[in-house]
Amino acid sequence: MDRVFKRCRISSRLVRECFAEFLGVYILILFGCGSVAQVTTSENSKGEYLSINLGFALGTTFGVYVSKGVSGAHLNPAVSLSLCFLGRFPWTRLPFYILSQVFGAFLAAATVALQYFDAIIHYSSGDLTVSGPTATAGIFSTYPAEYLSVWGGVVDQVIGTAALMVCILALGDSHNFPAPPGLEPVLVGAVVMVIGVSMGSNSGYALNPARDIGPRIFSYIAGWGDEVFRAGAGWWWIPLVATCVGGLVGSLIYELLIGVHHPEQEVTKTIDNLHNLELEVSQKESEKPNQIKVMQEQTT
Amino acid sequence: MDRVFKRCRISSRLVRECFAEFLGVYILILFGCGSVAQVTTSENSKGEYLSINLGFALGTTFGVYVSKGVSGAHLNPAVSLSLCFLGRFPWTRLPFYILSQVFGAFLAAATVALQYFDAIIHYSSGDLTVSGPTATAGIFSTYPAEYLSVWGGVVDQVIGTAALMVCILALGDSHNFPAPPGLEPVLVGAVVMVIGVSMGSNSGYALNPARDIGPRIFSYIAGWGDEVFRAGAGWWWIPLVATCVGGLVGSLIYELLIGVHHPEQEVTKTIDNLHNLELEVSQKESEKPNQIKVMQEQTT
Amino acid sequence: MDRVFKRCRISSRLVRECFAEFLGVYILILFGCGSVAQVTTSENSKGEYLSINLGFALGTTFGVYVSKGVSGAHLNPAVSLSLCFLGRFPWTRLPFYILSQVFGAFLAAATVALQYFDAIIHYSSGDLTVSGPTATAGIFSTYPAEYLSVWGGVVDQVIGTAALMVCILALGDSHNFPAPPGLEPVLVGAVVMVIGVSMGSNSGYALNPARDIGPRIFSYIAGWGDEVFRAGAGWWWIPLVATCVGGLVGSLIYELLIGVHHPEQEVTKTIDNLHNLELEVSQKESEKPNQIKVMQEQTT
Amino acid sequence: MDRVFKRCRISSRLVRECFAEFLGVYILILFGCGSVAQVTTSENSKGEYLSINLGFALGTTFGVYVSKGVSGAHLNPAVSLSLCFLGRFPWTRLPFYILSQVFGAFLAAATVALQYFDAIIHYSSGDLTVSGPTATAGIFSTYPAEYLSVWGGVVDQVIGTAALMVCILALGDSHNFPAPPGLEPVLVGAVVMVIGVSMGSNSGYALNPARDIGPRIFSYIAGWGDEVFRAGAGWWWIPLVATCVGGLVGSLIYELLIGVHHPEQEVTKTIDNLHNLELEVSQKESEKPNQIKVMQEQTT
Repeated sequence: MDRVFKRCRISSRLVRECFAEFLGVYILILFGCGSVAQVTTSENSKGEYLSINLGFALGTTFGVYVSKGVSGAHLNPAVSLSLCFLGRFPWTRLPFYILSQVFGAFLAAATVALQYFDAIIHYSSGDLTVSGPTATAGIFSTYPAEYLSVWGGVVDQVIGTAALMVCILALGDSHNFPAPPGLEPVLVGAVVMVIGVSMGSNSGYALNPARDIGPRIFSYIAGWGDEVFRAGAGWWWIPLVATCVGGLVGSLIYELLIGVHHPEQEVTKTIDNLHNLELEVSQKESEKPNQIKVMQEQTT
Repeated sequence: MDRVFKRCRISSRLVRECFAEFLGVYILILFGCGSVAQVTTSENSKGEYLSINLGFALGTTFGVYVSKGVSGAHLNPAVSLSLCFLGRFPWTRLPFYILSQVFGAFLAAATVALQYFDAIIHYSSGDLTVSGPTATAGIFSTYPAEYLSVWGGVVDQVIGTAALMVCILALGDSHNFPAPPGLEPVLVGAVVMVIGVSMGSNSGYALNPARDIGPRIFSYIAGWGDEVFRAGAGWWWIPLVATCVGGLVGSLIYELLIGVHHPEQEVTKTIDNLHNLELEVSQKESEKPNQIKVMQEQTT
Repeated sequence: MDRVFKRCRISSRLVRECFAEFLGVYILILFGCGSVAQVTTSENSKGEYLSINLGFALGTTFGVYVSKGVSGAHLNPAVSLSLCFLGRFPWTRLPFYILSQVFGAFLAAATVALQYFDAIIHYSSGDLTVSGPTATAGIFSTYPAEYLSVWGGVVDQVIGTAALMVCILALGDSHNFPAPPGLEPVLVGAVVMVIGVSMGSNSGYALNPARDIGPRIFSYIAGWGDEVFRAGAGWWWIPLVATCVGGLVGSLIYELLIGVHHPEQEVTKTIDNLHNLELEVSQKESEKPNQIKVMQEQTT
Repeated sequence: MDRVFKRCRISSRLVRECFAEFLGVYILILFGCGSVAQVTTSENSKGEYLSINLGFALGTTFGVYVSKGVSGAHLNPAVSLSLCFLGRFPWTRLPFYILSQVFGAFLAAATVALQYFDAIIHYSSGDLTVSGPTATAGIFSTYPAEYLSVWGGVVDQVIGTAALMVCILALGDSHNFPAPPGLEPVLVGAVVMVIGVSMGSNSGYALNPARDIGPRIFSYIAGWGDEVFRAGAGWWWIPLVATCVGGLVGSLIYELLIGVHHPEQEVTKTIDNLHNLELEVSQKESEKPNQIKVMQEQTT
């Protein structure tokens, strides 16, 4: 197999990163929307709201594991945008990342629809609706609660994504108290978990433009019709715009309250020590010849 | 952006620490009280009591991640006070920490109220009450169960906060079996989880004076009125006083049963070994010149 | 005891590995099927669907801890097969692993039946059935939901096992972002958790031929009769075949989208650095004599 | 404070260990039985069976963190006995450990009764019963389900404790795949979680003689009367005897299937490498003088 595989190798770094972002979001949505499908079509007998929280949380975790070593695992246009804004990601890669993310979410939604085809048909008696007692559009993308105003929806998504961004930046801030190496994916998943548990009831915590628009486009094509864009008084644009605003707000809050104030030389001790240890060893390595030379000079 | 950010840098260590305590408690209460708001206003359809436990537990976890590298992440006046008492935190910083903590909790409560504004109005039909079938004051601060006596409430909060403090001290005790580096925030969150699961039904496990009084003041101002102080036969002072007493009791229990008895020289092996390794390498580094000097002397 | 134990030592590596696979699957099924037995016979009063998800997830975790250091902890013929296909496991060991896995699952099912004997008799009034209101065959192996077509079942198990395989390969891929050392079992358990939460309602997420056929054979023998093979329009072969196909599909997806594209020399930084550090130290060790020789030559 | 504390220091290792076992079991039962009290007295409104599973699981986790660095955190006479049997713990310490464990459980039960005094009185209308609709004895110790025969109860506890012991031995076996350093307490808690989820409905998974008899004696004294010993056809002796038998059975299973077969020299790679690294560095340290001497000799 190995030889067959090697022929498929692509050396472009951008293509590899796009593949990774694609697969990462695919895994995230496959598990996330899958859990909504399970709870919806089993009428809460094979899961509950906590299952959906777990589905998106662990979906995020494994989406990150699948892609972090290759693309950095943004998995979210709002995150990519915020990182560009903070100068930690090049603007030129942004469109490619976003496209891969949206396409991953779209294809994952299609996979969920395929896996739950019989279940959705059975639950909805074949009538694919966005609202009503057997609505199934909520399996794919988010819709607001009936009581939610447009302004309330914007505030909800801005706060939610800002909270996400503050936590993500803290987990990766080596001057603060970063996540232990190798466990970032679990902790990012835990952020999604706690947001789902505390900010999920207003509008289903999209937090991520790709997570929402990809599956929404799929459901539009697959038979739920243009109601997916008209429902909730044209709700669809809020998970696109408010999440991006929220990402920027969260970045500002974290940087202005914590990030900028780190004393310049201070580096987290552990990293520093390990680094020094390594450095010293390699310095000695390179000193050796000199030392010998010195000795040569002295002995001659 | 970087240049703009750098102008905002504050070099005072105390201010930085206060910012960190503020943001840490803000995150804790945003997720914690948010989960109560979600379960309450969705009438248990988008969560259950375990969701609230998770909200406060993971809220604590991320509150700690956001602040631990800067301020040590007390996030709780009872913890700060106990650390002062044990001689591990200067009394002079105590008032600044407490103020930051209370202010963080106050502002987080305001944010939850903003995010759940439509939901609270819809659930309570606009009638903001402290008790009754559509009471919503419990979103912000704790109230005792109907059966609970004042004395029972004091005992409940003393035991709860003492248990919290015993576990926190154990997790940080390098002579015992400390939490693995980088995972303290997760384990402190788990302590809050288990207390919520086992000591939550009497009075809502405040455990933290700032967590309770900050949001209570907010709810007083925001329309719930002075009933928030009168309810539960004047319950409000118990989460302030009993938690501080509990913190001290827990510190005493841990220190007298475990802490003081550690043999004096014993240090956790791993730390010791790593430290030695590092030391030896750096010693050799500094020996080098001498060695060369010795050789110089000998060769000349 | 030590001397008695040592007489039982077997030096054959294959036998040791088979013992480990046996015990690993035994633990997995003991906890997994045990949780179904608990939820079923207590009529949801001592657990819910999430308990079953947790039972299989943590069952997997401890099944892996029990065996990973000895056999690599496949615990699943579909995983063993995929690893053979990828050239990472010898085809010659495959039949021994599969037999051990199936036998472990069979014996674990027998143990669950023994432990829940009184409970099953009480719940079913002694009438061991595969379907109906007090059906108990589902404690042991998986059966499809009523609405599921054969094709839908195949798709369900192919997608589920493919998702499992993608995540397992990512967690072990040192060129991507591997699981932190020592925590692989926990993360593999978390994969099983999220699959149970998002792909469990169609047919009970077998994902593993041994997990399904071992207990099914037990239930056939133990009194549920040949209905266990006839139910679900002859469902029994799907968890055997579709999971193997799914494992291969998942392997292909991960390798073609991520695995093959890793730049050849690139190695995860941490591993590299640590390795270098070690190497340099040991090189210097071996250089010493040369250095001394050089010095000898020069001084003479 | 420090000077006051130091006067209380006890240098006897056995006393320190007994204090640690006492406090560890105290924490375990405080959280464990507390969660049963919460679910019982709130009539499932502030928790569910999963809360009880979490209470005992995280209770175990923090019981272990509190004591592991001092006493090894057995927290369970059946575990202590098995370790004696395997030759890993001296028989002479066994009675002291068991007494400390039972006393810790007794005092924790008293604390739970104190904390839930108002709640228990309110729930049971002051009538402390072992069975019936408002029975509260189950808060403290375990009672069998109505359908369970004596023989079934023995089998249940033997299997449960054997499973516990197999997992504990695997997590600590450095020749297999041990728990990552610092996370053993979390993983031991997870074992208790999965046993609660999969083996809890028959008789409440005592698994631990001290956990059962300590609180049972308390409830006998505190007003539930001798019914606590008579209920379940004299159930009380089964959690004492069957758990000890189970611990031995589990030890035998793990040792005979996995433990004895480890090749003698094989050591887990990581440990080995780290150790070598350290060794080499320290060897060079000690070689230095020799090297210099050699050089001295050569140059002179």
